[in-house]
Amino acid sequence: MQYDLIIANGQVVTPEATFRAAVLVKEGKVAGFVSGDALPPARETYDASGLYVLPGLIDIHVHFRDPGLTYKEDFGTGSLAAAYGGITTVVDMPNVNPPTATVEAFQLKLAEASKKSYVDFGIVGVVFEENIGEIEKLADAGVVGFKIFMGETVGKLPAPSDGGIIEAMKVIARTGLRVGVHAENNQILRYYTEKLKAAGRTDPVAHVEGRPNIAEAECIARAIMFAEHAGAKLHIYHMSSREGVDLVAAAKRRGVDVSAETGPHYLLLDYTHMHKVGSMLKMNPPVRAKEDQQRLWEGLLDGTIEAVATDHSPHTLEEKLKDNIWEAIPGFCGVETSVPLMLTEVNKGRMTLNHYVKVASEGPARLFNMYPQKGCLRIGSDADFTIVDMNREGVIKAEALHSKSKVTPFDGFQVKGMPVSTIVRGKFVVRDGKLVGGPFGQLVRPVR
Amino acid sequence: MQYDLIIANGQVVTPEATFRAAVLVKEGKVAGFVSGDALPPARETYDASGLYVLPGLIDIHVHFRDPGLTYKEDFGTGSLAAAYGGITTVVDMPNVNPPTATVEAFQLKLAEASKKSYVDFGIVGVVFEENIGEIEKLADAGVVGFKIFMGETVGKLPAPSDGGIIEAMKVIARTGLRVGVHAENNQILRYYTEKLKAAGRTDPVAHVEGRPNIAEAECIARAIMFAEHAGAKLHIYHMSSREGVDLVAAAKRRGVDVSAETGPHYLLLDYTHMHKVGSMLKMNPPVRAKEDQQRLWEGLLDGTIEAVATDHSPHTLEEKLKDNIWEAIPGFCGVETSVPLMLTEVNKGRMTLNHYVKVASEGPARLFNMYPQKGCLRIGSDADFTIVDMNREGVIKAEALHSKSKVTPFDGFQVKGMPVSTIVRGKFVVRDGKLVGGPFGQLVRPVR
Amino acid sequence: MQYDLIIANGQVVTPEATFRAAVLVKEGKVAGFVSGDALPPARETYDASGLYVLPGLIDIHVHFRDPGLTYKEDFGTGSLAAAYGGITTVVDMPNVNPPTATVEAFQLKLAEASKKSYVDFGIVGVVFEENIGEIEKLADAGVVGFKIFMGETVGKLPAPSDGGIIEAMKVIARTGLRVGVHAENNQILRYYTEKLKAAGRTDPVAHVEGRPNIAEAECIARAIMFAEHAGAKLHIYHMSSREGVDLVAAAKRRGVDVSAETGPHYLLLDYTHMHKVGSMLKMNPPVRAKEDQQRLWEGLLDGTIEAVATDHSPHTLEEKLKDNIWEAIPGFCGVETSVPLMLTEVNKGRMTLNHYVKVASEGPARLFNMYPQKGCLRIGSDADFTIVDMNREGVIKAEALHSKSKVTPFDGFQVKGMPVSTIVRGKFVVRDGKLVGGPFGQLVRPVR
Amino acid sequence: MQYDLIIANGQVVTPEATFRAAVLVKEGKVAGFVSGDALPPARETYDASGLYVLPGLIDIHVHFRDPGLTYKEDFGTGSLAAAYGGITTVVDMPNVNPPTATVEAFQLKLAEASKKSYVDFGIVGVVFEENIGEIEKLADAGVVGFKIFMGETVGKLPAPSDGGIIEAMKVIARTGLRVGVHAENNQILRYYTEKLKAAGRTDPVAHVEGRPNIAEAECIARAIMFAEHAGAKLHIYHMSSREGVDLVAAAKRRGVDVSAETGPHYLLLDYTHMHKVGSMLKMNPPVRAKEDQQRLWEGLLDGTIEAVATDHSPHTLEEKLKDNIWEAIPGFCGVETSVPLMLTEVNKGRMTLNHYVKVASEGPARLFNMYPQKGCLRIGSDADFTIVDMNREGVIKAEALHSKSKVTPFDGFQVKGMPVSTIVRGKFVVRDGKLVGGPFGQLVRPVR
Repeated sequence: MQYDLIIANGQVVTPEATFRAAVLVKEGKVAGFVSGDALPPARETYDASGLYVLPGLIDIHVHFRDPGLTYKEDFGTGSLAAAYGGITTVVDMPNVNPPTATVEAFQLKLAEASKKSYVDFGIVGVVFEENIGEIEKLADAGVVGFKIFMGETVGKLPAPSDGGIIEAMKVIARTGLRVGVHAENNQILRYYTEKLKAAGRTDPVAHVEGRPNIAEAECIARAIMFAEHAGAKLHIYHMSSREGVDLVAAAKRRGVDVSAETGPHYLLLDYTHMHKVGSMLKMNPPVRAKEDQQRLWEGLLDGTIEAVATDHSPHTLEEKLKDNIWEAIPGFCGVETSVPLMLTEVNKGRMTLNHYVKVASEGPARLFNMYPQKGCLRIGSDADFTIVDMNREGVIKAEALHSKSKVTPFDGFQVKGMPVSTIVRGKFVVRDGKLVGGPFGQLVRPVR
Repeated sequence: MQYDLIIANGQVVTPEATFRAAVLVKEGKVAGFVSGDALPPARETYDASGLYVLPGLIDIHVHFRDPGLTYKEDFGTGSLAAAYGGITTVVDMPNVNPPTATVEAFQLKLAEASKKSYVDFGIVGVVFEENIGEIEKLADAGVVGFKIFMGETVGKLPAPSDGGIIEAMKVIARTGLRVGVHAENNQILRYYTEKLKAAGRTDPVAHVEGRPNIAEAECIARAIMFAEHAGAKLHIYHMSSREGVDLVAAAKRRGVDVSAETGPHYLLLDYTHMHKVGSMLKMNPPVRAKEDQQRLWEGLLDGTIEAVATDHSPHTLEEKLKDNIWEAIPGFCGVETSVPLMLTEVNKGRMTLNHYVKVASEGPARLFNMYPQKGCLRIGSDADFTIVDMNREGVIKAEALHSKSKVTPFDGFQVKGMPVSTIVRGKFVVRDGKLVGGPFGQLVRPVR
Repeated sequence: MQYDLIIANGQVVTPEATFRAAVLVKEGKVAGFVSGDALPPARETYDASGLYVLPGLIDIHVHFRDPGLTYKEDFGTGSLAAAYGGITTVVDMPNVNPPTATVEAFQLKLAEASKKSYVDFGIVGVVFEENIGEIEKLADAGVVGFKIFMGETVGKLPAPSDGGIIEAMKVIARTGLRVGVHAENNQILRYYTEKLKAAGRTDPVAHVEGRPNIAEAECIARAIMFAEHAGAKLHIYHMSSREGVDLVAAAKRRGVDVSAETGPHYLLLDYTHMHKVGSMLKMNPPVRAKEDQQRLWEGLLDGTIEAVATDHSPHTLEEKLKDNIWEAIPGFCGVETSVPLMLTEVNKGRMTLNHYVKVASEGPARLFNMYPQKGCLRIGSDADFTIVDMNREGVIKAEALHSKSKVTPFDGFQVKGMPVSTIVRGKFVVRDGKLVGGPFGQLVRPVR
Repeated sequence: MQYDLIIANGQVVTPEATFRAAVLVKEGKVAGFVSGDALPPARETYDASGLYVLPGLIDIHVHFRDPGLTYKEDFGTGSLAAAYGGITTVVDMPNVNPPTATVEAFQLKLAEASKKSYVDFGIVGVVFEENIGEIEKLADAGVVGFKIFMGETVGKLPAPSDGGIIEAMKVIARTGLRVGVHAENNQILRYYTEKLKAAGRTDPVAHVEGRPNIAEAECIARAIMFAEHAGAKLHIYHMSSREGVDLVAAAKRRGVDVSAETGPHYLLLDYTHMHKVGSMLKMNPPVRAKEDQQRLWEGLLDGTIEAVATDHSPHTLEEKLKDNIWEAIPGFCGVETSVPLMLTEVNKGRMTLNHYVKVASEGPARLFNMYPQKGCLRIGSDADFTIVDMNREGVIKAEALHSKSKVTPFDGFQVKGMPVSTIVRGKFVVRDGKLVGGPFGQLVRPVR
C-alpha cells in the first residue's frame, strides 16, 4: 500500500512516552507507526530528523471575532496565526455579532470559518437566560460546548441570573457537552473598580486591584456548586488565582466533573509586568501575583488544570493603548505565541514535553469531546501534527504576528523551542516555517 | 444580709447540670446559690417546688416592628408576648421604618422600646452598601450585632452588592460584633418563582418550590467565603436546609467562626403542613422536607446550630390569608409559642433540658456578645429566670396570643412543658401565668 | 443554717468563668455560693483574700507503689506529696505487686490506701490476656478505669496480644469505663535500642533515640483502631509526640471517643535537658524535641488533650542515677511539682487559669467517670478545693519533696504561682502551706 | 523491510482505546502498527480476525515453588499453566527453599526458571530482619521488588519485627523498587483461631472467623504508616477486605505511594462458597463477605487497586483436602483460570476490556518496574501478546489444569471469553489453544 505521507525519523511524543517511529498517513488519518529505517512506499516523506512529532496542539479558547468584529480579527487571520503558532485546532468563543446563541448564528459563523480557516475548529455556543431553549438545538447543530458569562463582564452580552445558570446547566447536562464559565463576580469587580476610580486611580495596576482574587474565587465556588447540583460537566475558563486551583482540586476530590484551563500569561507573567508594558497586559481576569503563578504551575503539573489555552483576544492598538487604564480594552493575542513560550518552559525543565502534550493536546480534546478524533496520535485519528524543533531559538515580535492585531505583552521575549511545521488532516499548512497550504479548516463535531 | 428575692426549692438547670438549689437575688443580679432547706432572709421568696429554674431564655430573632410598622406589632405587644412565652431577652431586627441603619434610627427604636418593653432587648443594626460608614458608630451606640439581607428579599431594603458585603464585613470585623445574614440567593428565588407563576401555580406549596434548597445553600456558602475572607464573625439566620447544616459544619471544622440558628417551625413542621394551614405557614426561607428537618435536629444536637430563634414576624390576618400564595406576606408569630413547643420536644426525649438551655439561653447570649450578663446562672449575672413546669399541658391557640398578630401555623398544637413565671433582673413580669410587672425592659449592651 | 466552712473573699475559678464569691460547705459537700460581704453563719471561715479558689485538682496518673514496691513510695508518702502539691484526688496505676488485676488485689490496695492516703483516690485495674474474665468484676468492685500496657514496656507485666487487646476492649466497652493505654510499640523500641547498644552508646540521649516518635505514633494509631472497632472509650496515657496529637485529633474528628493526657515534663522540657540532668530525666516515653513540645501545647489548648497528668514514678536515687543510661530506671516524681510548674505557665500567659482548671480538674474527672463528684465547683459536689496564690514565688528543690523519692528533673526551677491550701471534702489537709489534717482519703467510685 | 510476525485483522486493546490495526513484530519487539488491509511483508502473519489483541497479561503473584517445593509445582508446570491461561509474564514469590533472601538463592531460582519457564518472569526477594544487608545486592542482582511477611503467617519464614520492617523499608526505598507485604496481624489471627479451636470448631468457615477483617485492616494501616515514614513504595498483596480498600484509598489521597492487588477469588467468591467446596477454598487471607467483594470491585474500578493477581499457590490434593479445616493447607491454583474468569466479567459488563488491560497488564508492569518493556503495546516494547476470543465459551475443569496441582475452587465454572494464543517476545507459546513453543522464558530486569 502506498501511504499519502510519512513523517519519518522524528521522535514521536505522547503523554505517556517518547519513541522513535515513522508516522504513516492515509486519507487524512493516522494509518500506522513503524520503527526502523525501512519505510513503506509513500507519495511524500517528511524527514523529521532532530525534531519532535506532537499530536496536533489545540487552543480551546480563541476569539477570532467572526462574524461582526472583523476589524479586530477574522477567521482567516486568526487561524493563520494559529497555524504559524503550531496550533492545528482551535475552539472559537461565541461573543461575536450576532452571538453564537442560536443555530442561525452558529451557521453564520460556520460558513465564515469554513471559507477562511487554516486550521480545524470547534465552535462554542453561548447561553443567556433567554436562549436556554436553544441549547439542545445548538448541540445538535454541532457546538463542542457552551459558555456562560457569569456576570456582565463583556458588557454587551446579557448575563443569566443564578437561577438561569442552574437551569441552563441542567439542560446542558443532558447534551453530554461541557459548559465553561467566565468566572468573575461582577458585583465585586464593580464595587472595587468604582472605589478605585473614585480615588482617582488610572494606572495599570488599578485594574488588577479592582478584580481581587476573591472575585474569581467566589465565582468559581458558585459555578462548581451549581454544576454539582445540576449534574453538568463544568469548565473554568482562564483560571488565574491560587484560590481557584484549591477550589477545583477540592471539587475533583469529591467527584465533581470540573476542569480548568490557564494561559501562558498567567503562568509566565505577574502583575508587576504591567510596570513595563502598561495597558498592553490588561486582561480579564488579570495577571496576578507570584503566589498565584506558583500555584497555577502546581495545578498544571498535578492534573488539577487540564489545559493550556490562550484566550486569544485581538484588538486594535487604538483600543488597547490608553493612558487611563479604565479606557483600555482587556485582552491580547495568544494563539501564535503560546507554543514557543511553553516549549521554552519545557526546555527549562519546568515540565516534560510529554506533559505539555497532555495539557496542550489530549486534555483540551477530551474536555470538549473532540477526542480521539483530535488530541492523540492513534491509528484512525486525524493526522494532525505539530512538529517542533526544541533547539530553535527566536524572539517574539509583536509586529511579526500574523493576526490582524499586533497586541502582545510578550514582545521581545526570547524563546527556545519552536514549531516548524503544522499539519492538518495529513496536509501541510506550514512547512518548515512557510505557509504552504490552506485554508481548508473544517468544523470538529463533538462525540456525544 | 437580706436578699431581694429567693427562688427556692426548684431544680436549677444549666447546660452542664441540673441540681436542687435556692437562687439568691440582690439588686437585680444573681447573688448566690444555696442548697438545703434553711434559707437566708429575703424580702420575697418564690416557691419553685416541682418546677425548673432556667436562665432567662433568649430569642435572638424577633421583628417587633417598632417604629413604623406598628399596625402589625409594637414593642409593647411583642415583648408582652415574649414575657408570656417565657422569653426574658429578645434581639430585635432592623427592617423597620426608618431602618436601623443609623445612630438616629437606633435611638428612635431605643426610645420606643425603653418605654414599652416588658423584657430586655438587644438591637441589631442593618447594613446596606450606603451605610457602611455608620457601622462603627452603630457599634459605639450599642447594637449587639449587624444584619445583612443578601438579596432584596425584604423588598424595601436595598441589598448590598457582593463587593459591599465584603467591605461591610471587613468593617464589622473590627467592631468585634457578629454579622448575621438572611441567606437566600435572590436570583434563584426570582427565577423559579417566575417560572411557577408563568405556569399558573398559586397554591401554597408553589412558594416552597420557588425557593429551592440550592438558593439557601449557595447563599450560605457565599456568606461563609466572604466572612472567612474578611475575618468577620458570621451568623446564619433562620437556617432551614440540610445543605446549610453541612456547610456550616464544614466551615467550623476548618476554623471559621460561623454560627447558625434555626426555628421551631423548621424543626417541627415540613412543607406538607401547608396542605393544612395554607398561606399561614408561608415563610422565608420556607419550611422544607422531612430530610431537612432531620438534619437540622442533628445539627442542633451536635453543636453545629447554636441557637433556637423564632423569626417572630407578625402580620395582620388580612396580609396573611390569601388564596393566591404569591399575594400572602411571609412570616408569622413565634416568640410566645417557642418555649412550650420546644419543652414538648424535651419531654418527648428529643433533647435534654440542659441542652435546651444551651441553645435557648447560653448560645444566643454568647453569639451576640450578651454573655455572661445574659445567658447563664452565675453570680453577678442578671437575675433573669424562666421558670417552667415540665408537667403542665396545654393547647396553643392563635386567638390567645398576646401579640397584635394572631398568625401562627401551630394553632391547636398540644404541648406539655410550659413557662409559668418570667423574671427579668430580679423582678417578676409574669408570675404563675399572670402579668404582674413591667414594662421595664432595658437595652442590653454588648461586651466588646 | 450554720455552714461547716466558708471560703470567703476569694476569686472562684471554673473552666467558664472567674468571679468573686464565698463558697459554702456543709457535710463535705459544696452547699452554696454567695456574693457580697455579708456571710451566713459558719463554724469556720477561711479568708481567701487575694487567692484563687480552684476545684480540687486531680492527677490521673500516679504510681504510689502500694502494695509491694513501698521502698520507692507508699500511699502515705505519695498522697502527702500530692496534698502539698495542691492535688486533692489521684488515680493510682496498677503495676504493683500484686498487680491490680483481680478483685483481691484491688481490695489489698484499697485497704492500704484507705489507711494511709491524705487525698482521695481512684484505682485503675490492669488487663492482660489472662484476666479478661476479671474485667467486669473489677468494674463492679470500683475501679475507675483500666490500663493496658501495649508491649512489655514494664517488663514484669505480661502484655496482651493484639487479639487479646481487642477482646479486652470489647469487654471493657460494656462496663462504661475507659481503657487507657501505654502506647509504645515494643518491637520498634527493642530494635532501635539494640542497635544503639550494639553501637556502644550509653549516653542519656541514646535512650531517646531508641524510642523514636514512630514507636509511639504507630501504637496510638493501633490503639485507636482497636478501640473504634471494639466500641471502647480510649485514653492515651503520657502522650509525648506531635504525631500522637495529630492522630488523636483526627480520630476525634471522625467521632472516636479517645482522650489524651500529657505531662509537665513533655510540655516544659525537651530531650536536650538530658545534657544537664542525665539519667534523672529518663522516662518512657521519653521527653522529645521542641517541635513535639509545641504541638503538645497546641493540643492542650485546642481540646485534643484533655488532661495534664504527671506519671509520678518514684524510684530510689540508686535505681535512677547511673552512668550507663540503659541501667537507669525510667520515671521520676511529679505529683508535688505539677501545679506550681503549670501555674507558672499560666502566669506567663500560655494559658488562662480557667483553661488550667479544665485540664487539671474537670477534664480528668470526666475521663475517669468521677465527674461531677469531683472536677467541678457545683452544689452537691465534693468540697475539694485547691487554693492558689498566683503571686507566690519559689524554687523547686528535690530534697524538699514529700515523696520518699527525691527524683525530679525540675530541681532548681523557679516557679511563680503556688498552691497554699488543699481541702478534701471540706477538711483542710494543707492550710497555708502546713499539714493540718489527714490521712482521711477515700476511694472515688466511678459513675457508671 | 520484512517483519518477523504480523498480527493482522484483530482489534488492538490498550487501556485508552480499542482500534483495528495490524501489529508488526521484529526481533521480539513491537515494530509498528498499521491500519488497512495492505500489509508489509512478513515471515509470518497471524490472522486475528474476530479476536482482540491485548498486551501480554501479567500475574504479579505466583508461587511456582522452585526450588525446593517442586512436588507441588515447578517453574515448568507453573509457567505452562500460565501460558495456557494467557499470561505472558509472572512475578514469582520468594518463600521457597532456600528462600530468595540472598543473591545465591536468587541465582538458584533464576537458573531453574531460565531452564524451564514458558513465559517471562520477574523474581521478588524476601526480607527478614536478618537479611536487611542483602537488599541492595538483591536489587543489583535483578529482583523486581521485595516482599515482607508481616507476621509469621507462612510458618517457616522468620517475620521481621516492626523495627526491622521500618529499617528494611528505609533500605528498600533507596533501591527504587517496591516492597509488597502480606498484611495480616498474626497476634489477632492466633488469638481468634485459638478461641475457635478451643470451642471445638473444625468446619471450613471457622478459618474465616479466625482471620477477621480487623486483622488485615490493622496490618495494612501499619504497613502504610511505616512506608510513609520510611519513604518506601508499598504494595499490598492479595487485599481482601473493604477496610483495606478504604485505607489504601485514604493513603493515596494524602500522597502515599501505595498500591494494591486483589484476586479473582476475592472478586468472585465469598465465604459462603466454602459450604460447597470446603477446604478447597481455604486461603490466607480468606475470601470474605459480599460487602467486601463489592468494595473490592469499587476499588478495582476507581483505581485504588491497580492489579488483579492470583496468588497462585499450588498444593497436592492430600495437603489440601481435610475434614478438619485447621489441618488443610491454605492456597490454590489461579494462574490458568484468572483470565477466562475475568473476561467473563468483562462480558457481563462489570468492566471494560480496556480497564481489564489496565489492571492485568499495564498496572502490574508499572508496579514492579517492568514498564514499558512489559505492560504496553508500544513501539520498542516486548512483543508479548495475549490474544483473546471474547465469544468463546468453556468450563473450568480442575483435572484439566496444566499445573501439577489440580486444586481450584472454580471447578465447574462456566466462562465466556478465553485466551487463544499467547505470544512472548514475538514467539508463540500457545497458538489457537495448542502448545507450540517454549520453554524460552527470560528474567525481566526492573527499570531503576
